[in-house]
Amino acid sequence: MIGKLIEKIQKTGAPIVAGLDPNLDFIPGFIKEAAVKEHGESLEAAAEAVWQFNHAIIDAISDLVPAVKPQIAMYEQYGIPGLTTFKKTVDYCHEKGLIVIGDVKRGDIGSTSGAYAQAHLGEARIGSKSIAPFGEDFATVNPYLGSDGVMPFVKACKEYDKGIFVLVKTSNPSSGEFQDRLIDGRPLYEWVAEKVNEWGADSLEEGYSSVGAVVGATYPEMGAALRKQMPKAYILVPGYGAQGGKGEDLKGFFHPDGLGAIINSSRGIIAAYRKEEYRSYGEENFAEASRAAVLDMKKDIQEACLTH
Amino acid sequence: MIGKLIEKIQKTGAPIVAGLDPNLDFIPGFIKEAAVKEHGESLEAAAEAVWQFNHAIIDAISDLVPAVKPQIAMYEQYGIPGLTTFKKTVDYCHEKGLIVIGDVKRGDIGSTSGAYAQAHLGEARIGSKSIAPFGEDFATVNPYLGSDGVMPFVKACKEYDKGIFVLVKTSNPSSGEFQDRLIDGRPLYEWVAEKVNEWGADSLEEGYSSVGAVVGATYPEMGAALRKQMPKAYILVPGYGAQGGKGEDLKGFFHPDGLGAIINSSRGIIAAYRKEEYRSYGEENFAEASRAAVLDMKKDIQEACLTH
Repeated sequence: MIGKLIEKIQKTGAPIVAGLDPNLDFIPGFIKEAAVKEHGESLEAAAEAVWQFNHAIIDAISDLVPAVKPQIAMYEQYGIPGLTTFKKTVDYCHEKGLIVIGDVKRGDIGSTSGAYAQAHLGEARIGSKSIAPFGEDFATVNPYLGSDGVMPFVKACKEYDKGIFVLVKTSNPSSGEFQDRLIDGRPLYEWVAEKVNEWGADSLEEGYSSVGAVVGATYPEMGAALRKQMPKAYILVPGYGAQGGKGEDLKGFFHPDGLGAIINSSRGIIAAYRKEEYRSYGEENFAEASRAAVLDMKKDIQEACLTH
Repeated sequence: MIGKLIEKIQKTGAPIVAGLDPNLDFIPGFIKEAAVKEHGESLEAAAEAVWQFNHAIIDAISDLVPAVKPQIAMYEQYGIPGLTTFKKTVDYCHEKGLIVIGDVKRGDIGSTSGAYAQAHLGEARIGSKSIAPFGEDFATVNPYLGSDGVMPFVKACKEYDKGIFVLVKTSNPSSGEFQDRLIDGRPLYEWVAEKVNEWGADSLEEGYSSVGAVVGATYPEMGAALRKQMPKAYILVPGYGAQGGKGEDLKGFFHPDGLGAIINSSRGIIAAYRKEEYRSYGEENFAEASRAAVLDMKKDIQEACLTH
């Protein structure tokens, strides 16, 4: 699957993933009103509003980006109806040819991680049938429980041709509280990075492993060092835009050939219509504003990172 | 909510939580066959089998234990139908007066953790309505992202009278890979424990904080040390039974007054009918075997830990 992701990045010229992390606050009033009219003030209404919002944005940007990253928490917060929209979103993105990175940050003891791997990357076997419960292409994984919490995902990557991104250095302000602490002179996140290399060692495709890493755009020096430490891991980079990361910060996350990293923007794309620079699109053209934001982000990253 | 948990532990005399972690492998054939007859070989059939299995076990043990801990991965692995059974299980346990610990191990950047906290402990606000998406009483939380990934859960605990258990030292074999590494002479899990004290400092009820800790039964010496380090944190102890922990290992997790810890058993209770010692119950009386296993576990823990 990492080979397919690289192919799509090269085809679109955009090492960009659109974070489909909708919150009711971001969704235009007319969509929410229509959903409440149909479903009353209910979780179903919230889920329907999210679906209509996603659907329009996916239609507007699917030719520009290789991949999307729905953050499952934003769907889980609306219960079963919300998770039903998550699944519909995954399926619709696949229909449109997009690669789907499930930002699920799961991780547990071995047998439980196996169940999560089945949920998001694998298939449930029921009698003679095999059914993909959610069917993303990639999932994000939390490493706090160590190898036996991660290996079931690695196994699913092999069995189903999928990939994972392991949290190494996250984009949030307090990520350093534990991740930066020094162990034998090196920060914890470097020890995790070393394991990322190990977990992915025997699953190379186009020179990259099916085990990638998450490293926040908000920590550019660490990104550059981790790029060197994990030469074969694709780096998924959150934190561009709303969280403060800029194109110029991102150069170090890429290899000199322009591969090796894919930059996520969530609010910066899906809530673009609320930003000063895209306000002229108007609320009703929110999806066109998202398209403009993707094009601007592509230009920013190409100029800052991909031209030498 | 921690006060309510303590009250129920005292009333039942059983510091025990039943892990509702059903896998199709554990579920008697006659239940699976009936579900497939009704729903075909589908995720719906798997979810229905899990529901029938849970329902019978809950009926058989609800007067004996204060709490249950459904592991959401075991439901997520059957997609939307599986998660619908998770929600039905939470609701049915509440009907039966049980406290529900959602073993979700969520944790993300601040805004996203806020969404998870809403999903599992809080309420979604939709127009004039507030609706609990899943509505557990406690949730387990992964600390790898640091304080800003945990505080939204702590906030939800205050707002909705709930509690959390933060992963400190997990029960799995490779938990030491990162958690045991020394930072300034102390293992990472002790640094997390220190934060658990801090996160829970201003939410005391009956002398215990709404922020508890997960410490595996498989590491008894660490459990005893962590008991001392976090005097006001209730400790949720997985790993008893199938993972190898025994009653005699658990004494150190309790305070001298017999409070301070609650021991989880999952397979040991729900799949008891498959164990040699309960095989005489027969597959059709699986729930009665679970009841017998709870009574035996209660005796084991009382004798090993609560009599002095």
